[in-house]
Amino acid sequence: MSVKMDETFRCVTCTAPVNIAVIKYWGKRNEKLILPTNPSLSVTLGQDELRAKTSVAFSSKYTEDRMWLNGKEESVSSQRIQNVLKEVRRRVRKRGAPGGGNEVDTSRHIHIVSENNFPTAAGLASSAAGYACLVYSLCKLYGVQGEISDIARQGSGSACRSIYGGYVLWKTGDLMDGTDSFAEQVAPESHWPEMRSLICVVSDQKKHVGSTEGMQTTVLTSELMQHRVDGVVSQRTDDMIEAIMARDFPTFAKITMQESNQLHAVCLDTYPPIFYMTDTSRLIVRLVHAINDVLGDIKVAYTFDAGPNACLYLLKEDVPRVMGLLRHFFPPAQRNGEPFVTGLPVDELPVTESDLAGISLPQSEGAIKYVIHTKVGPGPQVVTDPSESLIDADGSPKQKSS
Amino acid sequence: MSVKMDETFRCVTCTAPVNIAVIKYWGKRNEKLILPTNPSLSVTLGQDELRAKTSVAFSSKYTEDRMWLNGKEESVSSQRIQNVLKEVRRRVRKRGAPGGGNEVDTSRHIHIVSENNFPTAAGLASSAAGYACLVYSLCKLYGVQGEISDIARQGSGSACRSIYGGYVLWKTGDLMDGTDSFAEQVAPESHWPEMRSLICVVSDQKKHVGSTEGMQTTVLTSELMQHRVDGVVSQRTDDMIEAIMARDFPTFAKITMQESNQLHAVCLDTYPPIFYMTDTSRLIVRLVHAINDVLGDIKVAYTFDAGPNACLYLLKEDVPRVMGLLRHFFPPAQRNGEPFVTGLPVDELPVTESDLAGISLPQSEGAIKYVIHTKVGPGPQVVTDPSESLIDADGSPKQKSS
Repeated sequence: MSVKMDETFRCVTCTAPVNIAVIKYWGKRNEKLILPTNPSLSVTLGQDELRAKTSVAFSSKYTEDRMWLNGKEESVSSQRIQNVLKEVRRRVRKRGAPGGGNEVDTSRHIHIVSENNFPTAAGLASSAAGYACLVYSLCKLYGVQGEISDIARQGSGSACRSIYGGYVLWKTGDLMDGTDSFAEQVAPESHWPEMRSLICVVSDQKKHVGSTEGMQTTVLTSELMQHRVDGVVSQRTDDMIEAIMARDFPTFAKITMQESNQLHAVCLDTYPPIFYMTDTSRLIVRLVHAINDVLGDIKVAYTFDAGPNACLYLLKEDVPRVMGLLRHFFPPAQRNGEPFVTGLPVDELPVTESDLAGISLPQSEGAIKYVIHTKVGPGPQVVTDPSESLIDADGSPKQKSS
Repeated sequence: MSVKMDETFRCVTCTAPVNIAVIKYWGKRNEKLILPTNPSLSVTLGQDELRAKTSVAFSSKYTEDRMWLNGKEESVSSQRIQNVLKEVRRRVRKRGAPGGGNEVDTSRHIHIVSENNFPTAAGLASSAAGYACLVYSLCKLYGVQGEISDIARQGSGSACRSIYGGYVLWKTGDLMDGTDSFAEQVAPESHWPEMRSLICVVSDQKKHVGSTEGMQTTVLTSELMQHRVDGVVSQRTDDMIEAIMARDFPTFAKITMQESNQLHAVCLDTYPPIFYMTDTSRLIVRLVHAINDVLGDIKVAYTFDAGPNACLYLLKEDVPRVMGLLRHFFPPAQRNGEPFVTGLPVDELPVTESDLAGISLPQSEGAIKYVIHTKVGPGPQVVTDPSESLIDADGSPKQKSS
């Protein structure tokens, strides 16, 4: 990975995962450095189903920094992109990259090409995967060593958690400069191999309040938010880590649901109030509680971020039965042949009369567009096969990616 | 009103109003006595549009206590009805009714006939009006003097606020026996004659969690609830009383909206979560905030109780414009000739281009079923015209009332 003085073109391609928080990040104590008001904890999902892929290249031929996202050129002038580029280049100069020649490296312009393997519009955590992938790729390109999740954090807060696989804690930190607010792995994906996720894509509508603006307003106006930060989240984080280490699913699931509901509660307590969950989201919540009642134990958990989509966590053994119930209560509308369930295969079980007897909920056809079945996955990966690169030799996006 | 020994039949008919809280009652510190965790404050609405009407009679001929609600006979054995009957009779014996002969009075069986002038199913505060009317009527029947709102409280908590007109405070109280948890009038309806209300009836579906059970679960499981009780509501109550006394509508409206949102926030923070607002409720919330933005000041407030219906508060001068906007964004569906707006007349203003330019919301036809236009009203009233009685001479409901 050494960077030579005479190198005129260099390209690195990496992938990074999506993460879905079970202890929620909502609220910054420092907007510029993106420092959170409380710790958060997330599960990193499998990259076969959900990942960002980014190629970064520098070349003496490039006349300016340029970036293409999902086939469309975007400005690199956004504050967050600049934060990330500046911080990576600062570390190259500070630490010195292998082989030296730092000024040459960091003075060269770069091209960035990135794309997701899932619809950005689906309202899944695309910015976390995107910034994690950008930072990881740049650090590989420049040979930056050491902790990098704090760089990803400066692009998008939750991106710092996508730097690791498995179960990941983002520490609040105490320092004003944010150097102690980074992510660390609580347990690798191999720790709890039975864990699965069913992501129910409810809507691809744009949310009416962005999460950056939303959490800002919550911190400023919600009387309940400060109590959540001071009196609730830290204890829940400790309990959650304990549940994960003990593979205690009912406790993991209950805290996950309580956290999701409290996030949306403080959003509702915001002035003006912020709503992300829809009637369909609420039907999913009621179905999950009804399923747990029928099964006599907490077997499924839901969590919602700044949008109406549900992420369900459950164990492998319960996927067939739960998927059958999901399909029964949310009969798929015709999607011109596209499958209702994508990702890992499911041996779906037909619903039983006794299950249905215990669940008094309406069926709502088409309310869930499709379901992504995935599991817990690893952190960012370097893609070694050059044919997988998104950038061609002259530094523009390969056609396939546009 | 004196009760004579030789009296064999006596009948009293009264009406009582609905009240809609602007500082919300949610949570009991004593389930049996119905003592609240926090103070609440409500606005008593006009009885021409919303009222309960109750006739109570005793007779030496009656062989048992009987009750008819909205034309249907109901058991009087429910705990809450019994609480009220026992407490009223206890006070008659304790204080002695004018003319004495108490044992005769209270040993006689009574018949109760009650009906509302609005659909109970509409999810408006019918139990508050109903219990207030029952208690007020019984006290008139037996000649019970003094504070009676604490009797109504033991039938249905919020009923104690319907014992008074105008703006009414229900004090939390400190005593274990609840004798200091009663309602008192903050200001009469004449204090702020411009105040109006538009009740948007969204749905007549039964709510999925009753408020009695719901507030119980919230107190037991919501981590935010205790902070609301300890750290938020009392200050808001003081601020609200100040705003009412000063006729400061923007402050009155903002606290009203924050209170409504916080009530539903603690419901969402409950485990399992409780939802009362629907997508239509949320559209109304967004429309109200959008209208206030367009008008450049807070001119309308919404509040939601344990159901999806919105109660809007606004001043008389703004009703025509707001009603026009409500009709534009919620075009009425055909209701076989029934009017979209009932109650007080409205000189509805057509919407202007400039208003619409500032409001980016979808139109949803039929989402609001109808609107009740009313104002602030007085407390319970005695109906003197005998033809208005709901009980006929032999003690059964008059036919018209069934």
